[in-house]
Amino acid sequence: MRWLEVGDLEDIAVGAAVLGTGGGGDPYIGKLLARGAIEAHGAVRLISLDELADDEEVITCGAMGAPTIVLEKVPSGDEMLMALRHYEAISGKAVTAIMPFEAGGLNSCLPIVLAAQTGLPLVDADGMGRAFPQLEMETFNVYGVPAAPVAMADEKGNLALVETDSAAKAEFMARGICIRMGGQASLVNYAMDGATARRVSVPATVSLAQDIGRVLRQARVDKTARLNALIDFFGTTHYGHAELLGSGKVSDIERKVENGWSVGIVSILPFDSDVPYRIRIQNENLVVERGATVLAVVPDLICVLDIDTAEAIPTERLRYGQRVDILGIRVPPIMRTPGALMVFGPRAFGLTAEYVPLGI
Amino acid sequence: MRWLEVGDLEDIAVGAAVLGTGGGGDPYIGKLLARGAIEAHGAVRLISLDELADDEEVITCGAMGAPTIVLEKVPSGDEMLMALRHYEAISGKAVTAIMPFEAGGLNSCLPIVLAAQTGLPLVDADGMGRAFPQLEMETFNVYGVPAAPVAMADEKGNLALVETDSAAKAEFMARGICIRMGGQASLVNYAMDGATARRVSVPATVSLAQDIGRVLRQARVDKTARLNALIDFFGTTHYGHAELLGSGKVSDIERKVENGWSVGIVSILPFDSDVPYRIRIQNENLVVERGATVLAVVPDLICVLDIDTAEAIPTERLRYGQRVDILGIRVPPIMRTPGALMVFGPRAFGLTAEYVPLGI
Repeated sequence: MRWLEVGDLEDIAVGAAVLGTGGGGDPYIGKLLARGAIEAHGAVRLISLDELADDEEVITCGAMGAPTIVLEKVPSGDEMLMALRHYEAISGKAVTAIMPFEAGGLNSCLPIVLAAQTGLPLVDADGMGRAFPQLEMETFNVYGVPAAPVAMADEKGNLALVETDSAAKAEFMARGICIRMGGQASLVNYAMDGATARRVSVPATVSLAQDIGRVLRQARVDKTARLNALIDFFGTTHYGHAELLGSGKVSDIERKVENGWSVGIVSILPFDSDVPYRIRIQNENLVVERGATVLAVVPDLICVLDIDTAEAIPTERLRYGQRVDILGIRVPPIMRTPGALMVFGPRAFGLTAEYVPLGI
Repeated sequence: MRWLEVGDLEDIAVGAAVLGTGGGGDPYIGKLLARGAIEAHGAVRLISLDELADDEEVITCGAMGAPTIVLEKVPSGDEMLMALRHYEAISGKAVTAIMPFEAGGLNSCLPIVLAAQTGLPLVDADGMGRAFPQLEMETFNVYGVPAAPVAMADEKGNLALVETDSAAKAEFMARGICIRMGGQASLVNYAMDGATARRVSVPATVSLAQDIGRVLRQARVDKTARLNALIDFFGTTHYGHAELLGSGKVSDIERKVENGWSVGIVSILPFDSDVPYRIRIQNENLVVERGATVLAVVPDLICVLDIDTAEAIPTERLRYGQRVDILGIRVPPIMRTPGALMVFGPRAFGLTAEYVPLGI
């Protein structure tokens, strides 16, 4: 157990942007909300999976929607709590621990808000080890935890609940509600006990985000040092490997909101060639190709970093002319099993590329 | 109080098709489901609004969706009960009486199914006095009953719940869920006590449907007799007036499913003229015009009747070449107040026509 305080948030937000692989929502907004919640309610206990009692009532939480929408339809900060109280009223259970359902962007910070508001501990883990665009793309689902009931709330206080057997149907129904809530909603779901949480979660990803932020902050000497520090750091984690896939200038962005997601393609032109890198986006960066060559594909992380600061640029903030590095990061083993690849490998996104883990 | 038995259903279904004004879902399917439920569980007590105790827990129910979809995605008959149990579990209330939320089509029969399954009495009333395509278009809403919580279920057992302050928002969110349930769902909502139900409901509309069916059945001599019997009958009810607006042959149908509704325009060519009647449809028949003349408009009922049988043809069964009468029926006074016209008058449908009550 350790305490998360306001001073920890900057590093977490910077690291969450990297793990967001372009998605997960703007971590700047998340950081401000988390700061406000900790200032109002006090520091948050961060506990490891190992510190969870077997019979703990864990709930996971985060925001759903198109990151482009979050920039204008900012969360109030109370949605998670409304969704949690709605879930508790309906289930008759008292939740005892909060876990992020994804690591990345806004969704690394919103669970801190909820933990501060409730006084409950935050579990240092998540179900994606990164950000993914769909609710069923969770290790929780891969390893047998029901996605529903899903309790949802928006910043105006509208509430909804979904109950269904299938995680994919839960995603489909919740996305429909999210769209009718304006394209952005908060939710709690994937209720499980502590013993299950230990078995099905990607461990230590809140700490990982903070470590990424610290590595980048402490390495702020020159840009190569920063990028190399990040690559070296990932070699020491359970992710195990990161590498520079390419560098260049953002030369084209096609981006729209479709079916409740930000989707599109960003082209990045190398400084010394006419053959661009092309990254396909569904909230997150899904695949990076150059010509006919696939350089990296989901579930591995594809991060677009500012070439000067090595800080991640979320998809909704990509602009023509930005000079960027493209970083690939391999996912940890729990996210590379055949069962996991069925749920969030290339085919789950309709991509034809084969998954080959980076650096193996 | 009287008992509804299997022998009552045919007349109710025939009358419900008239009150459906083209919508409300296919009453044939509703009749079969109601017959099955009464055969399995016994007859249903039909009680008047006056027989409701003040503290009764009334819930209203029906199906939502595009009638064209109901033809292929037939209700299982258990959706209402699942939605009701979901509502009771969440509200902590035990419902003591069932009321249809609309009079017309499938939705005159589904509440009979639920009343049979639960053994609860069915209230002889509804909130539309006809069928309307949207959840907020209810006298319940006009006179102050909250539309939410809305509990929803589909034939696969998927469940959803919506909580929101506004009836229009409840409609918008529930419609989004309905679409993701495949375009057809069952729901319970507009919970109210018995005293409130007496104040805000359109009375005696289950009996009205049955009376319409009986009038048509008993008048089966020739087609003019049937139509005239129907017109004469409405003059004796609290609706007060019905009239033949025109006759002709269905010459064109534009119809599609859009935003979860069946929408379109049907053209009916008179036998002695080249100027067609044009009826605009959103599940129900909204307005009938000929050239620049508005012959009838919501909330008044516009019914397309088979010219030989005087039975109503729902919009999803309209076909080129059908010979039809167009019948207009004035709505009762509770549905013509300024507040009511705000909610389901022409402007609520984006129509520019002024509402002039038929026959006044």
